[in-house]
Amino acid sequence: MAGTRDDDAPSSALFDEQHSAEIVAGSFAATPDPRLREIMTALVEHAHAFVEEVGLTTAEWQHAIDFLTETGQACSGTRQEFILLSDVLGVSMLVETLNNRSGDTLTESTVEGPFHLLASPRRELGDDIDEVGSGEPCLITGRVLDDRGDPVAGAQVDVWQADADGFYDVQRPGEVPERNLRGLFSTDESGRFWFRSVVPCYYPIPTDGPVGRLLHASDRHPYRAAHVHFEVSAPGVRTLTTHLFVAGSPYLDSDAVFGVKRSLIREFAEVDDPDRAEEAGLRNPFRHADFPIIVQREQAPPPAATSDDGR
Amino acid sequence: MAGTRDDDAPSSALFDEQHSAEIVAGSFAATPDPRLREIMTALVEHAHAFVEEVGLTTAEWQHAIDFLTETGQACSGTRQEFILLSDVLGVSMLVETLNNRSGDTLTESTVEGPFHLLASPRRELGDDIDEVGSGEPCLITGRVLDDRGDPVAGAQVDVWQADADGFYDVQRPGEVPERNLRGLFSTDESGRFWFRSVVPCYYPIPTDGPVGRLLHASDRHPYRAAHVHFEVSAPGVRTLTTHLFVAGSPYLDSDAVFGVKRSLIREFAEVDDPDRAEEAGLRNPFRHADFPIIVQREQAPPPAATSDDGR
Repeated sequence: MAGTRDDDAPSSALFDEQHSAEIVAGSFAATPDPRLREIMTALVEHAHAFVEEVGLTTAEWQHAIDFLTETGQACSGTRQEFILLSDVLGVSMLVETLNNRSGDTLTESTVEGPFHLLASPRRELGDDIDEVGSGEPCLITGRVLDDRGDPVAGAQVDVWQADADGFYDVQRPGEVPERNLRGLFSTDESGRFWFRSVVPCYYPIPTDGPVGRLLHASDRHPYRAAHVHFEVSAPGVRTLTTHLFVAGSPYLDSDAVFGVKRSLIREFAEVDDPDRAEEAGLRNPFRHADFPIIVQREQAPPPAATSDDGR
Repeated sequence: MAGTRDDDAPSSALFDEQHSAEIVAGSFAATPDPRLREIMTALVEHAHAFVEEVGLTTAEWQHAIDFLTETGQACSGTRQEFILLSDVLGVSMLVETLNNRSGDTLTESTVEGPFHLLASPRRELGDDIDEVGSGEPCLITGRVLDDRGDPVAGAQVDVWQADADGFYDVQRPGEVPERNLRGLFSTDESGRFWFRSVVPCYYPIPTDGPVGRLLHASDRHPYRAAHVHFEVSAPGVRTLTTHLFVAGSPYLDSDAVFGVKRSLIREFAEVDDPDRAEEAGLRNPFRHADFPIIVQREQAPPPAATSDDGR
């Protein structure tokens, strides 16, 4: 808060500029839920400090009201423009990261994104999730271990990705089979998984709404670096939502939603070996990425646990 | 920003929690409009500091996304739920006040509110704006002076208010004449204005949307203290938007939108004098409030003025 404020405590909600944050925060003092009180108090303090700091004009405030209104009205059953706004402001990644701290051991998490709309079809280890067969074929392998180094047999590995042109199945209805480039695999006895696919392409987030206009006005591009989504779950372990990023993809260092963490970038190395290609069921040459995954074994909940959101 | 951050400048948009605000602010560094860059940078810094400070959970973030989406979708041609949200967070009053600083001389401003929907009908000095005649009759008088103490003849004094039950005309369509309790007056040669009305009642802001739910969850009432809206304009003076508040009204010290400033509260004194009542054209007894108004004479614009919003 500004250091110039004096120490006169406001006695009521009579407004004065110098005490605006304290006055408004005071109106939330009787909030029965202490967590809501904490959140609203911090929100008011930051909102008022922001307005004072930039000296927001009335015209700018009206512009912000209009922007937020349009953002809300752009939302529908298949479009969530406020999540997109949160994404391009890095808020989604911050929330994801601070709720899933990985320490030095665990695989890092990243945002789920808006394309996990369809349940992935159950597939067998080794299956090809690319039912169309365009682009560069690849083999993706990995092993799910827990934080004690033990393999997690029967872990559910849910994967989904864009195709070689940067489109998800839901963006090409009628052109590609529904649930193309999606798959739900179970790890084997030693925690291993493997499947065939196509090397994904980078792609733009939707730019035809208010968030797109913000990016344009800020001279920011809308692209996400090429990636395969992973969601890994098993009884007794904390579910991990992350991406495998393609090393060398454009936009790795300027992903529009700040989703890239260095540890999640893997080489999709070119393999030119007819025998290995035949063994994998791929055309030669092909590309191969290995993505070891370390998930957190959940502790038994403490006896006095009070809620299910980590508090 | 948190004092524990180290000094390693992030080299790209690769995400890490410790530098999240710097990384995201960096993505706005090439924004062509320096003012938009300044605003987005400060917004990102406060948004990330807020999330870190409260340790926002994923469930709480999702709740916020849902709340903002509902707020946007509650907006229509006659309802602006984001302005209402800004109002109950005191942001509207802060923006209004810092853009209309009154110093020690000028009449203080307050929010315009959402009920200035209809143009007020032109009326003659002394007219009664209450075409229904319920409640306690009152006489409102005043004089518009500029900051040099000179009267402002021919100033336009636009007034609108709720009735004795706390409703504006637009909230009682069919029940009361359209434009009841609205009037546009011109001050006389000595800057004076006077008109008849009814003493307004306090009233609730709309509570049937997400903002109402927030107030309820926070144990905050939705009431605004009783007031008459004023918008005073004239060539060469800065337009003043303010309220005249009724001394003794409930909620003066807890107005739901923080609109009350002490200097705007005036006695509506009871007058029991048949001669004065007859002279004013009111039933005896009546109530009388005097509201002197000091507006700012505009300076000639500086030669290099570049925009019309005060920057």
